[in-house]
Amino acid sequence: MNVYDIIDKKKLGKRLAAEEITWVIDSLVKGIMPDYQMTALLMAMFLKGMNKQETADLTNAMLNSGKVLTFKDPKIIDKHSTGGVGDKTSFILAPIAAAVGVKVPMIAGRGLGHTGGTVDKVEAIKGFKTNLNLTQFSNLLKSKGLVLIGQTKDIAPADKIIYGLRDVTATIDSIPLITASIMSKKLAEGANGIVMDIKVGNGAFMKSKSDARKLAKSILETANRFNKKGVALLTNMDQPNGHLIGNSLELIESMETLKGHGPEDLTYLSLHLAANMIHLAGIEKSFSASMKKAKQVVKNGKAIKKFESLIKNQGGNHKVVNNYDLLPIAGKRTIIRAPKDGWVKSFDTTHLGFLCTDLGGGRRVKTDKIDFGVGFDLHKKIGDKIKSGDPIMTIYHNANQTKVVKNITKDFLNDVVTFSTRKVKTPEVIYEKVTL
Amino acid sequence: MNVYDIIDKKKLGKRLAAEEITWVIDSLVKGIMPDYQMTALLMAMFLKGMNKQETADLTNAMLNSGKVLTFKDPKIIDKHSTGGVGDKTSFILAPIAAAVGVKVPMIAGRGLGHTGGTVDKVEAIKGFKTNLNLTQFSNLLKSKGLVLIGQTKDIAPADKIIYGLRDVTATIDSIPLITASIMSKKLAEGANGIVMDIKVGNGAFMKSKSDARKLAKSILETANRFNKKGVALLTNMDQPNGHLIGNSLELIESMETLKGHGPEDLTYLSLHLAANMIHLAGIEKSFSASMKKAKQVVKNGKAIKKFESLIKNQGGNHKVVNNYDLLPIAGKRTIIRAPKDGWVKSFDTTHLGFLCTDLGGGRRVKTDKIDFGVGFDLHKKIGDKIKSGDPIMTIYHNANQTKVVKNITKDFLNDVVTFSTRKVKTPEVIYEKVTL
Repeated sequence: MNVYDIIDKKKLGKRLAAEEITWVIDSLVKGIMPDYQMTALLMAMFLKGMNKQETADLTNAMLNSGKVLTFKDPKIIDKHSTGGVGDKTSFILAPIAAAVGVKVPMIAGRGLGHTGGTVDKVEAIKGFKTNLNLTQFSNLLKSKGLVLIGQTKDIAPADKIIYGLRDVTATIDSIPLITASIMSKKLAEGANGIVMDIKVGNGAFMKSKSDARKLAKSILETANRFNKKGVALLTNMDQPNGHLIGNSLELIESMETLKGHGPEDLTYLSLHLAANMIHLAGIEKSFSASMKKAKQVVKNGKAIKKFESLIKNQGGNHKVVNNYDLLPIAGKRTIIRAPKDGWVKSFDTTHLGFLCTDLGGGRRVKTDKIDFGVGFDLHKKIGDKIKSGDPIMTIYHNANQTKVVKNITKDFLNDVVTFSTRKVKTPEVIYEKVTL
Repeated sequence: MNVYDIIDKKKLGKRLAAEEITWVIDSLVKGIMPDYQMTALLMAMFLKGMNKQETADLTNAMLNSGKVLTFKDPKIIDKHSTGGVGDKTSFILAPIAAAVGVKVPMIAGRGLGHTGGTVDKVEAIKGFKTNLNLTQFSNLLKSKGLVLIGQTKDIAPADKIIYGLRDVTATIDSIPLITASIMSKKLAEGANGIVMDIKVGNGAFMKSKSDARKLAKSILETANRFNKKGVALLTNMDQPNGHLIGNSLELIESMETLKGHGPEDLTYLSLHLAANMIHLAGIEKSFSASMKKAKQVVKNGKAIKKFESLIKNQGGNHKVVNNYDLLPIAGKRTIIRAPKDGWVKSFDTTHLGFLCTDLGGGRRVKTDKIDFGVGFDLHKKIGDKIKSGDPIMTIYHNANQTKVVKNITKDFLNDVVTFSTRKVKTPEVIYEKVTL
């Protein structure tokens, strides 16, 4: 076998055999195949496509490039979000599902660009360790039913290499390549089912429902080929989830939601994702019974307790649950006010995410340091009525950030938010549920 | 400007602007743009295509990556062949054209794979220097009207990098990329017109006339955009040019042809190419008058004299012209004989070329050393009548090559040549002439 022939085959739009795909991934990870051949192949894969079998074969090869965990417990259900602004649902759905009996293995990422990362956010809690190894991860999952760690080089190392190359060669937005990237990691983590939150909208990777639906189908088909259960929700990312954006701020909103005081959209979305996990785990026979259970553990305090024990299990200061002041919060507040009467019509959500990055709440490049304490409180969302002078958003910032705050205020009003003089409908939170 | 956006644009099938193309080539040559981004872009260019303007812009950027010669003399006409087996026409047409008054700047390549290289072949002449610098090249061209050197890193260095990357990423056979590769070098050499010999057939890069015609049009259009005259001949490469294959052997056949004793097909092709150069140089008003001049200098001995002086000018032993024994020739002969009566129907010409490489007459990889003395004398060509036992091909080899000669004989009879029991037509040498 040789790389040239494989690139040539895919370039001509032919189907690659499982052995060819495995050989490529193996050669890449071993450093035998140079990057410049892989990127040509990735572009050919991108432009000529990969069928279901090739996608599954690529997933399988990437999955087997590292350690693969397997658990017998059918109650181990994973969740994955394609990412968006203010997306803190993991902190809510995981304790809810775990409180009902689902075992939730979370290997999460760091933030880059306009979106934050679950691992960054949780590290706002003093002492919380995310760099556990896979044995510690497995043990906590089995004994406590809930664990949250950062990505480890032991899981699907091929994905890390390939993602790095796709990221600089404009080959990210390919459904088979995204599928293989997500599923190689998720399958390696040993879950027996997966609930996907596929974000759609101007703050998400997927801009259209039809693309999101294709990705959902592709992921579910791949899961199915590996005998894993799966369900996907297509959810609205034309505005942030909830009101708070920024690392500490998102943790606070998550804890509030776990206590039953969360904003409506975030509560609705998190409960639905959690209920799907409960249902997929086979704990309840119906979705409605699963939803009932999910609501119950919020009401009776078990969900927030589960979150507290997650913090405790991983060395964090669990007192944060009852004392948000233990989280780093920037000392200054600047309020952006509505320039006129009307209704909030839209947000440029990606731009809003980048404004938080500008403030220090996220990373432009991987080496950037994160300021946990900064962020935004978005008081008004799409469909909300406003009067001139009403606060629309509060910026949480540091004393020395006057200039960036000024720019953010200007950009927010000029480029991020739009208003309407007519009533605007409150948008749907979940567009549809996709199953095979 | 950034590479990512440029790759993304081409991936989506959009047209790249001249500044974008220039910036890419510049970044690549400076080592700022990594190979793995260039190969992704090349694959996107390959699969999404490049229009005429982009092709010209790419040519221009590659051309300007190195030194660019310019001559005012309209009589400076270059020739380029896309390469084939036994293609020694440069040694014939250049002295003919030069003897008539065309100035012929030749910067030629070395052989790789199934085809030989002009520079390798001429180095069979003892003392012949091909590594002259561009100043020496220009001076010889101006003073003597004929010069032949090897590729220099000063001319279109971007092409060398890009060709190296295309060669390992299955992105060679793209008309815009081939056009830019050929034309960036040719335009940098300062010629004011170019005659293209585009080979078509099983020994050539282009397998079909329609692809060859597309390449011809693309090259001529690019030449036109740079205000250069051009003409292209689509010529037959379903069998070797002439009878002799191998470095010294091809020189001998070239000199014989310059003396008027060459094989019919090679004479016909070389005269046509030379006459087109003469015509393009404006030395004669009509093609027929140009052809008459070309035939004249063969007949009156001026052509072979010109070749002799070329050798002298570049330090070679010019006595070779009248004494072929001064060339290295392998001492042993093995004759392959016809296994039956009939007509020669076809050759697998690429395979035949590789058999010469197996013998040591060419390179499999760039570091291989060439044996000038080995080669083939193909006595019978397509359409020739044969009787069982007739010599079809003589192998020129060394004493220690018994095994490889045995394999060549077997392969030649089994895989290279086919016979017919019915009369086979002698194929055309030149299919068509393409102009803008």
